[in-house]
Amino acid sequence: MSEFRKDPLHNKWVLTVPTRGKRPNAFYYEEAEEEKKDKKNCPFCEGNESMTPAEVDSFRKKGKENEPGWLVRVFPNKYPALNKEIKMSFSVDKFPEIVEGYGFHEVIAETPSHTKDIFSMNREEIILILKMYRKRYKILKDKKNIKSVFIFKNHGRAAGASLSHSHSQILALPIVPPFIEEETKTIKKTKSCIYCHLIEEAFDGNRVLLENSGFIVFAPYASEYPYQLLVLPRDHQPFFEELGDEHLMLLSDVIKGVFDRYKKLLGNIPFNYFFNTPYLKKGHWNIQIMPKLTITAGFEKGTGISINPIPPEVAVRELKRV
Amino acid sequence: MSEFRKDPLHNKWVLTVPTRGKRPNAFYYEEAEEEKKDKKNCPFCEGNESMTPAEVDSFRKKGKENEPGWLVRVFPNKYPALNKEIKMSFSVDKFPEIVEGYGFHEVIAETPSHTKDIFSMNREEIILILKMYRKRYKILKDKKNIKSVFIFKNHGRAAGASLSHSHSQILALPIVPPFIEEETKTIKKTKSCIYCHLIEEAFDGNRVLLENSGFIVFAPYASEYPYQLLVLPRDHQPFFEELGDEHLMLLSDVIKGVFDRYKKLLGNIPFNYFFNTPYLKKGHWNIQIMPKLTITAGFEKGTGISINPIPPEVAVRELKRV
Repeated sequence: MSEFRKDPLHNKWVLTVPTRGKRPNAFYYEEAEEEKKDKKNCPFCEGNESMTPAEVDSFRKKGKENEPGWLVRVFPNKYPALNKEIKMSFSVDKFPEIVEGYGFHEVIAETPSHTKDIFSMNREEIILILKMYRKRYKILKDKKNIKSVFIFKNHGRAAGASLSHSHSQILALPIVPPFIEEETKTIKKTKSCIYCHLIEEAFDGNRVLLENSGFIVFAPYASEYPYQLLVLPRDHQPFFEELGDEHLMLLSDVIKGVFDRYKKLLGNIPFNYFFNTPYLKKGHWNIQIMPKLTITAGFEKGTGISINPIPPEVAVRELKRV
Repeated sequence: MSEFRKDPLHNKWVLTVPTRGKRPNAFYYEEAEEEKKDKKNCPFCEGNESMTPAEVDSFRKKGKENEPGWLVRVFPNKYPALNKEIKMSFSVDKFPEIVEGYGFHEVIAETPSHTKDIFSMNREEIILILKMYRKRYKILKDKKNIKSVFIFKNHGRAAGASLSHSHSQILALPIVPPFIEEETKTIKKTKSCIYCHLIEEAFDGNRVLLENSGFIVFAPYASEYPYQLLVLPRDHQPFFEELGDEHLMLLSDVIKGVFDRYKKLLGNIPFNYFFNTPYLKKGHWNIQIMPKLTITAGFEKGTGISINPIPPEVAVRELKRV
């Protein structure tokens, strides 16, 4: 049966329609692994360091900057969405509203290997990426005129990855993005902790996939996409960048658990994930993981309502079975 | 240079980044025409009427309902997002919010021919589709418990069309979609007519592509997608369904003009369009046309900010040149 469901964090509506999963071409994606066959001239590969802008950070087993020997490597995006050279000039109070695109846009090459990805990485490799996220987050949030830092990953062409070598991106923005602002508003107006409420509700609704002493992973009640998952710290913990090493280890465990299950059930699927930090002491920072198995079409674009053919409770049941 | 631009109608942010158009795989789409080669067993083809649910409307040159001889044919969606059989029961005041998926979901087969589409239709064929939109709109908006009617079209697999035979869809919803509600709020709080303001501003910014005595077609200042266009009635005209035949003819002219130019510049591209009706006497109903040439990735999904690699003033300049 169809249901309109409302995401209380972002005030977004979702239409959950189980029968839509049965129509022809309901799912439209290719496994992301295939794209990796074309590895020549990959700028993110070890040995090709000269093909990227000069690195700004790295974890290495040997070598100097911009040389081979790195494990995780960070450099400015060659085609940045934001640019630190831009002189800030706000004019949001006049019509039309405009803010010049000041900011930082960095790429994190997650591994020197062209073929490795989050579906095949071990726990230690994942921890190293998380440590680099934390490090760059701390550095970028203190830059002048920066209001928010946004970490995200596109995996697979269908999910917007223009290069197949496993990588993430970090943007430091001069504004707080609308969805984060919406989340912040919700936290402010909710008396008790809305994240703790969501966790409780996920247990009640059989939508919890994984948990350990640090984290809970569940499918949100109003999931926009099939097999979408939310990673939440179990305790009130507003700032990702303040996480200790022990918590990063616990986090790597649930991340590994999630992608193992995705791979077993669905294969090397295209997906996006991103880190949300609501910038309030009352919140829980969180990671949204969104597989890209369907296409956003005219209805979603025009109404702002997502159609999800796989109800989240069904998604979790299937992911648990594998 | 990058710019954050704000869409005043929907309060949405767009990041216009001209240099992003130059990165590898910046555009990722196939021409929609190719998919039409597989025409066997198409349920929307003339002669295959028994493959769809029973028709609810048609314009015909001959024949009875559910027989060949039709020009435009309407039937319920076989995999509906909404269902008229559902007993309405609202529970939006409790957490989690939920509204059962009551409503109507119809398909409009726009032509009996499998290979014809909006890029190859003549003016008369387009007028007939518009007349069917108007007719179904009027009928559906008067149904019990219906709060809004939404007409849209997905063309090409990449834009979400699960079948390649040219068709549109109409949904009659028990709620007003969030984006329409946002538009309505903007109209209410703007003293003068915001649509007339947008038209004026489009002329000032060299973003007008086409105009006739009834309509203006321009690229919005904060276009979310490359080559996005907005079709606005020149005069205050809040309700699409009240349009006279003469206006439908003027509308078909600008629609034909738009798709002729798209085809010459970009080919038979995947796209979505949809009709917005703000449900206020003060508004202008309008059509948003959104080519699907790029992929919405983690940044857009997480922040609510779109990245557009083709500034709208550049898009219009290119579309004018062909």
